[in-house]
Amino acid sequence: MAYDTLSSRGRATANTSMRKILTPILADNYDPETNPTGYVNMGTAENYIMTPAVSKFANQTIRTTSKTFTYGQGPWGSSRLRRAMASHMSRHFHSVYPIDADDILFANGITSLCELIAFTIAEPNDAILLPSPIYQAFQTDFSAKAGLKCVFAPFHGSDQFAPECITYYEQAYQKAEANGTKIRGLLLCNPHNPLGKCYPRSALIALMRFCQSHEIHLLADEVYALSVYDINDDAAEPFTSVLSFDSSEYIDRNLLHVLYGFSKDFASGGLRLGCMHTRNPALMDAVGAITQFAWSGSMNELVAVSMLEDQSWLDGFVAESRRLLAQGNLLVRDILDGKGIPYFKGSNAGFFIWMDLRPWLPEANDKGEVLEDAWDREAELVKRFSENKLYFTDGKSLSAEEAGWFRVIFSQEQTVVKEGFRRLFKILGV
Amino acid sequence: MAYDTLSSRGRATANTSMRKILTPILADNYDPETNPTGYVNMGTAENYIMTPAVSKFANQTIRTTSKTFTYGQGPWGSSRLRRAMASHMSRHFHSVYPIDADDILFANGITSLCELIAFTIAEPNDAILLPSPIYQAFQTDFSAKAGLKCVFAPFHGSDQFAPECITYYEQAYQKAEANGTKIRGLLLCNPHNPLGKCYPRSALIALMRFCQSHEIHLLADEVYALSVYDINDDAAEPFTSVLSFDSSEYIDRNLLHVLYGFSKDFASGGLRLGCMHTRNPALMDAVGAITQFAWSGSMNELVAVSMLEDQSWLDGFVAESRRLLAQGNLLVRDILDGKGIPYFKGSNAGFFIWMDLRPWLPEANDKGEVLEDAWDREAELVKRFSENKLYFTDGKSLSAEEAGWFRVIFSQEQTVVKEGFRRLFKILGV
Repeated sequence: MAYDTLSSRGRATANTSMRKILTPILADNYDPETNPTGYVNMGTAENYIMTPAVSKFANQTIRTTSKTFTYGQGPWGSSRLRRAMASHMSRHFHSVYPIDADDILFANGITSLCELIAFTIAEPNDAILLPSPIYQAFQTDFSAKAGLKCVFAPFHGSDQFAPECITYYEQAYQKAEANGTKIRGLLLCNPHNPLGKCYPRSALIALMRFCQSHEIHLLADEVYALSVYDINDDAAEPFTSVLSFDSSEYIDRNLLHVLYGFSKDFASGGLRLGCMHTRNPALMDAVGAITQFAWSGSMNELVAVSMLEDQSWLDGFVAESRRLLAQGNLLVRDILDGKGIPYFKGSNAGFFIWMDLRPWLPEANDKGEVLEDAWDREAELVKRFSENKLYFTDGKSLSAEEAGWFRVIFSQEQTVVKEGFRRLFKILGV
Repeated sequence: MAYDTLSSRGRATANTSMRKILTPILADNYDPETNPTGYVNMGTAENYIMTPAVSKFANQTIRTTSKTFTYGQGPWGSSRLRRAMASHMSRHFHSVYPIDADDILFANGITSLCELIAFTIAEPNDAILLPSPIYQAFQTDFSAKAGLKCVFAPFHGSDQFAPECITYYEQAYQKAEANGTKIRGLLLCNPHNPLGKCYPRSALIALMRFCQSHEIHLLADEVYALSVYDINDDAAEPFTSVLSFDSSEYIDRNLLHVLYGFSKDFASGGLRLGCMHTRNPALMDAVGAITQFAWSGSMNELVAVSMLEDQSWLDGFVAESRRLLAQGNLLVRDILDGKGIPYFKGSNAGFFIWMDLRPWLPEANDKGEVLEDAWDREAELVKRFSENKLYFTDGKSLSAEEAGWFRVIFSQEQTVVKEGFRRLFKILGV
């Protein structure tokens, strides 16, 4: 009976519920003292090492007023919050123009902003173009409600951070259009998740020209903009925001949009607060007309604006975060190097290392049945991780081109990271 | 150029942006001391008189931990919050069964829950049935993104709180179906907004039978459940929750759902926190699979759970809120009675009085042009209110059957209410 009460889209959605999958992982966290047999979560990209500093700051500074509990200035973010963010982005993204607070709109995270933008720039069954691999949630963000398809550009071993990557985007674009799928935008994740690498200006310009040539939107998700650090790796690039150079000769300003938020650089995923910066007034109007569904709320805003306005605290916080992230990145490199496990080189940003377990994919399942397909082998390895309460995001979820890659989250206590690898190596037998 | 970059649904949405309409009202609030020429907002239904108590409570009790800033247990509300709400609803709604915390799902307000439910129970262009008049936001909640139509049942002067109201719902249902529109649910707002009246059990049973007979969902929005007070008015009814009696012989449990939240009874609209209670597992799965787009965030949750868990504070808060709401209701009745302005009788709940200005609708606009249509006359009066920085929600927005009705919000300082009526009477010339 219960399923019969739903619509076709409701039934399709019901079968994808994260609630059942994530609840056991999120409710049973490993702790060396209190829960040594719990889940080692090396899958969720959170800046765990910096959350205590945010909490301490919040407890010292947050004072509500009666206005905090009203609708305030509405769902788009207060003018005070938008001004503080405009100033933050102008400074840290080295914007070539002063960002206007009215060109910023807040919502409860980039997840929601992707969904709202998808709704407003595309019809159902239109598509968004993304590189492969890419952060797994984008697929749901664009498709689950707004009904877009995701088209992934594969790079066949070529450098997707070089301007020549456009060849592969162009191929994916032409193939989709030939199949009757209209591409409406390209999602750029810079610094890249899960690769942890930044795009050089030359590649950004090539991507802008590509979007302009097809008159499609370029959505620049720069949520890891400040989580970039010095690593002794020749393949690494410094971070360059799309705002940091004059792009007017490459792309119409109506097609270029930046997404940012508090989940990563501010270690505050729990605040559910992200923003869009755009100078497309029609897009601002359209998203602004449905932001009430993505309203984050005033307690979250209060913490966020306090962090943004205390520049000296924030500078110290970001410096410490960078120091610890670099340490975590190096720790994982050392551990993997010690076992001869390869990984993607060039990462100096974000919370992750892209680990190559292709040589360790099991050839058979635990019933001894031979697994011909590489993705079945990856799924078998995921099953073994799960049996040992170990969680990495797998390559399939991250739309990898080839089976066997996993994203390792290192932005947590070293004891947790080490326990994770202890379990991993036992499973792999290395 | 900018509009050309949007999809058809995006362009349609862009033209409805609340951002431009609401910003001047929300940013220029009347204050007798600091802004005597500002907007008197008697339109937004907030419990302004009780927000200082919430703020005081929050400042005394809220302490974050590092976990506060993580994704916690996910977007559905922590188990602690859901347990506290289950206990609260069991107690205050006099539930006939103990409510299970797993049958509660949180999101950033009932607005979002309506949208998520609409998405999952109906196809685009299916419809939801609502009484007339009704809280204006429902129309956007169900239509803006989920694409539902709203079908309003008119009552032609009959009592819509009597079981016989079913006749009119049935007429509206048959008319819609005859036009090819599939009705998928009925929205019950109890206590009713904007009428401020509660439904007797007999009417609730009739509505349940009606929904069962057509196998459509009954969405019971009980967000004003505790904002009910004693008023010397024979037409008033005590509040009866759909949970407070055994409904199993009237409606399948898979079709009955309750919506509740913190915006009204807890004077915390800024927290963006509402919940759905359902025993339909498929609906729970479906909504749970897209709740990440409606995630309220942990700071909001922290305040909410603290209020729910401190029963002695909450009991005092609710008692004081009821006392002040009764006072506000009586004040508006007195003021209107003093001028001979009629209003809907029977209100003992919520923050509003439904005021009848039909006799004062202007017959011509300020250019002297005669207005034939009553709705044009109402619009002309709204324009005059706006010119005098006075804001009531008008009957047209509230889907009234007849032009000339306005919703008066009295849950605010008496000085504000009195200033609003001073301006109103000047405009009406009474």
